[in-house]
Amino acid sequence: MNKLQDLQLLIEDAVNQLSFPAQPSELYEPITYIMALGGKRMRPALLLMACDMFGGDVKKALPPALAIEVFHNFTLVHDDIMDNAPLRRGKATVHEKWNPNTGILSGDVMLVEAYKLIMQVDDSILRRVLEIFSNTAVGVCEGQQFDMNFEQQSEVEIDAYINMIRLKTAVLLGGALNIGALIGGASDEDASLLYTFGEQLGIAFQLQDDILDVYGDPEKFGKQVGGDIISNKKTFLLIKALELADADEKQALNQWINAVDFNAAEKVTAVTSVYNTLNIRQKAEEAMQNYAAIGFEALDKLSISEDKKQYLRSFADGLMVREK
Amino acid sequence: MNKLQDLQLLIEDAVNQLSFPAQPSELYEPITYIMALGGKRMRPALLLMACDMFGGDVKKALPPALAIEVFHNFTLVHDDIMDNAPLRRGKATVHEKWNPNTGILSGDVMLVEAYKLIMQVDDSILRRVLEIFSNTAVGVCEGQQFDMNFEQQSEVEIDAYINMIRLKTAVLLGGALNIGALIGGASDEDASLLYTFGEQLGIAFQLQDDILDVYGDPEKFGKQVGGDIISNKKTFLLIKALELADADEKQALNQWINAVDFNAAEKVTAVTSVYNTLNIRQKAEEAMQNYAAIGFEALDKLSISEDKKQYLRSFADGLMVREK
Repeated sequence: MNKLQDLQLLIEDAVNQLSFPAQPSELYEPITYIMALGGKRMRPALLLMACDMFGGDVKKALPPALAIEVFHNFTLVHDDIMDNAPLRRGKATVHEKWNPNTGILSGDVMLVEAYKLIMQVDDSILRRVLEIFSNTAVGVCEGQQFDMNFEQQSEVEIDAYINMIRLKTAVLLGGALNIGALIGGASDEDASLLYTFGEQLGIAFQLQDDILDVYGDPEKFGKQVGGDIISNKKTFLLIKALELADADEKQALNQWINAVDFNAAEKVTAVTSVYNTLNIRQKAEEAMQNYAAIGFEALDKLSISEDKKQYLRSFADGLMVREK
Repeated sequence: MNKLQDLQLLIEDAVNQLSFPAQPSELYEPITYIMALGGKRMRPALLLMACDMFGGDVKKALPPALAIEVFHNFTLVHDDIMDNAPLRRGKATVHEKWNPNTGILSGDVMLVEAYKLIMQVDDSILRRVLEIFSNTAVGVCEGQQFDMNFEQQSEVEIDAYINMIRLKTAVLLGGALNIGALIGGASDEDASLLYTFGEQLGIAFQLQDDILDVYGDPEKFGKQVGGDIISNKKTFLLIKALELADADEKQALNQWINAVDFNAAEKVTAVTSVYNTLNIRQKAEEAMQNYAAIGFEALDKLSISEDKKQYLRSFADGLMVREK
């Protein structure tokens, strides 16, 4: 097994070597720009790890790993336009640095480039890999649409929320592992168990993000604590709180949600206090642990050696407890 | 050989049977909407005709034919956002009827759906078909970017213009024929000759559009005559006129191009009169005939019976002389 750091180096090298035509520069420069902004490269790393676990050649898996990263960055470029976000990883988003049209069109080309990369697999698995990739891509778009819908809805059910984060963020982790396993020569059953592992852990990661936004250590978390509360984001915590609140608590929450002029710190404190009364943190952590447990259960069933399972388990644990 | 009308019926049936998940409806309804707006379905028809010419089963070629039509409609949805166009085939564009975000995201899903359809070919040609499709898709995006660039440039060379229309509209015609031929069992050489036929005729069609915009019969053309002149669109005619104009003529053209307040009919008459002095119509028609001739030359070289060639020749002729 390769060390994670070695895989990440391979990925960084491959990202740096990605090259596009010089013209039209308005189309291709934004791709190089967004790909160079960095990020943890977690998705391509998962693909390489899965390939590696089944004895596959990680170098051969690099183009499909890049496909996953290019696809992920395509979704960032288009999502940032839709969310009207000025910054991504501390730098100007593509539509800010250029303009929305450039963001749309460069994003489109990135999706095609992702397909060109994902198809660089052996004939024997080409069709299967394309199916997984396309289904994943459709899922991610559906997740983004549900997310935008939820912003306009006054009520969202927990199940609908879980399904949204599953689609928007978790299926791509599952898809990366699934494709990596197939490239490594895994059986369909093992590949599909790895998919479940990635998908369920992905849901757990997102729930962890929801929790950290309110209960995280601001120094370690790196984001403004309470940002979700301030913007009324319908996270697991808010949805669950509205579900469990009695009449008074619901009124208090809705008053803050509807407030136009408010002191941000005061709002965070007040809403957090309702969360505390309702034990929301514990409920969110329970849900998070449940999804993680389903993921680890799938991992246990894989027909690979215990030390290889341990490798993935540690990787996931590292992501799960990055902050408490 | 099937009659063109029969192929078009097959395509309409297949378009009507395209079905998408019910949810999220904001994502899928716009796809059904834009696909139902109609159009000539020329691209999927070309794919089926090419398949048919080589004795392939046109029913088997329907999913890839639909892929080409879904892809084409994806480009219309995104282009309409970029061009800020309110109408498409007399109906509200997707971003007008819904909103730009819906247009972006539905378009993204359409591109993925196009890939899901194009991969419904035999294993033996899957990789080749994917390569052609991806290269075509990248070309179309590059063409759109060049087109947007040209709007901002004061000078455009004829060669750059021809390359832009080749990418933006012609490569997709070539790609459709190329893929259809491969599905029909054509040799790589025949498939590539058909590509050339489609690409070169595609350039000729676009030049014909440029000519008809100025010299077409308004009743038959169905668009406002002189629309390109009014909007200063850098067509073959305007580019060629600026290239050939003497100092006085250039000044006259630039005066109209830079005019902010003007009478539209007066502008059309004045610019057309410069075109007439410079023999621009004749030059454009010569260029159009030259590209068409290269296309027909490729057609002649195909290793198929003369009556099948005649079939494609008539189809292209029908498109070329639809108005004079």
